[in-house]
Amino acid sequence: MADAQLDVVGVGNAIVDVIAKADEALIERLELSKGTMTLIDSDDADRLYGEMGAGIETSGGSAANTLAGIASLGGAGAYIGKVRDDQLGGVFSHDIKAAGVDYRSRPATEGESTARCLIFVTPDADRTMQTFLGVSVMLGPDDIDPEAIGDAQITYLEGYLFDRDEAKEAFVKAAELAHAAGRKVALSLSDPFCVDRHRASFRHLVEGHVDILFANHDEITSLFETDSFDDAVRQLVGKVDLAAVTRGAEGSVIVTADQVIEIPAEPVASVVDTTGAGDLYAAGVLFGLTQGFELENAGRIGSICAAEVISHYGARPETSLSALVKEKLG
Amino acid sequence: MADAQLDVVGVGNAIVDVIAKADEALIERLELSKGTMTLIDSDDADRLYGEMGAGIETSGGSAANTLAGIASLGGAGAYIGKVRDDQLGGVFSHDIKAAGVDYRSRPATEGESTARCLIFVTPDADRTMQTFLGVSVMLGPDDIDPEAIGDAQITYLEGYLFDRDEAKEAFVKAAELAHAAGRKVALSLSDPFCVDRHRASFRHLVEGHVDILFANHDEITSLFETDSFDDAVRQLVGKVDLAAVTRGAEGSVIVTADQVIEIPAEPVASVVDTTGAGDLYAAGVLFGLTQGFELENAGRIGSICAAEVISHYGARPETSLSALVKEKLG
Repeated sequence: MADAQLDVVGVGNAIVDVIAKADEALIERLELSKGTMTLIDSDDADRLYGEMGAGIETSGGSAANTLAGIASLGGAGAYIGKVRDDQLGGVFSHDIKAAGVDYRSRPATEGESTARCLIFVTPDADRTMQTFLGVSVMLGPDDIDPEAIGDAQITYLEGYLFDRDEAKEAFVKAAELAHAAGRKVALSLSDPFCVDRHRASFRHLVEGHVDILFANHDEITSLFETDSFDDAVRQLVGKVDLAAVTRGAEGSVIVTADQVIEIPAEPVASVVDTTGAGDLYAAGVLFGLTQGFELENAGRIGSICAAEVISHYGARPETSLSALVKEKLG
Repeated sequence: MADAQLDVVGVGNAIVDVIAKADEALIERLELSKGTMTLIDSDDADRLYGEMGAGIETSGGSAANTLAGIASLGGAGAYIGKVRDDQLGGVFSHDIKAAGVDYRSRPATEGESTARCLIFVTPDADRTMQTFLGVSVMLGPDDIDPEAIGDAQITYLEGYLFDRDEAKEAFVKAAELAHAAGRKVALSLSDPFCVDRHRASFRHLVEGHVDILFANHDEITSLFETDSFDDAVRQLVGKVDLAAVTRGAEGSVIVTADQVIEIPAEPVASVVDTTGAGDLYAAGVLFGLTQGFELENAGRIGSICAAEVISHYGARPETSLSALVKEKLG
């Protein structure tokens, strides 16, 4: 096996976030499912955008946020995700390159427009996401860059992309290429509703192709159809090499064949917007794993990165995570 | 004269800001004129965007920011400014309507794209702006909505728009309509370089058509070709009914035929990004004037609004200015 040129290559959506403050009454009136991600079509996107307050636009996409975090930590990352050749596609492409990530996808010249995620941030810092996936979801096996996959220690797959058969095929292709090159495959479950919609496929992917699993409490209990977090954690053992499961303010748990390590959350003076918390936690853990940190410290780095991103609006770091981790971990 | 339905109608550029942090070395390497606004073409916009860090996009435009501020203060405002029917045009239109401003312009279906302003914010909170005006600058006399002008106590013109003859004609038309309806005309000089380029036209506009003038130190001394601020202020008397001249951290001065009122700056805990300071100062003063506040209090409201906008990234208020002014002015 050749030395890896890259630490992590991400495969996921390519989305521009539209962030606006919202009060609880608006979430109720629009009948949104608070705190979750809902897929919407182009008409709903226009309608809901019309109901939103004045916003800021900033690049997002779950795995793309993770790769931006890895770059800010000093890791070498690449990204595969689809935009159109439109203005928002230009914004996404610019931002991920400016973040220091090697962006491997060319903009599509036809099809729907670049994906947008309308993010309503309530005063409790919770975020309710309404996503128009546009061209992003058209990612298929042909978009998987074998060179990038072979070059990376870890291929990181974004569960949100898992709604179309072509994307599932792309994931399996990426996983097989990674394993053939002696590399590891990581997956983020992304969303409990997405897990509900595709439980069998996710179980098949996790059990057959995934070495490292990221999930939160709701996703992991949904995957194993249990109410018990401890039961879900027990079921993980043997199915993956390592699972990192987040529990919001209670921190996270890293599970391996012979260890269950509890990781505390990093204290935050003021939580502003929780968008990107899971994405940046994954960035920290993946960076820690690829740099050979002990598991507990990899988890701590994840907590530090998540704490930075929830202290401001937007799902990507605003400060150098590398400097922040040096300061906190010593 | 009929009662005014609107407090202020703004006529200006319709721009989406692209904001990124930059260090001093980048400003030097790109040979940018720090702290000012430079007009750039489409190629330069692409080149400079490529050199920028990851950014956030947020609606801007000088007079548009002012109108958003007036709406946040509780005033009734309308806006005239040109976008294309593209994604950034959609962002501008959405944001100004969501801010509570009656947006009177339809997107153009041909011509250049919606204007973008690349804003490099240095660690000293100064902003260096590189503006691709796109379709925004195509505003001409036909775009002036006589109904809005007749309905508004004050028509507020943005000096930045003053680079093309059609825009100059549009300004004169708007001013004549306003005066015919018994209304007042205000002008912001916007930029010392713009004043340099068009000094004779600006002098003609100010002396023949403007009742209320907004400027900063550099603009007003450029207009009257003097090194002395006091001399410039003396020259204002008799040419306009009222001039409000800002001096950064030193506050501002309101000048009338028989008064020179010094207004202190509002203290700010941490200045993050000075973009929009002048625009929001103008919002406060215009709101104060249209609501019948005494001049000193109109100036104070201007200072309070400017202080809010420089305490965060972006050129539009993030909090209710109405509530803020109630809290500060009592």
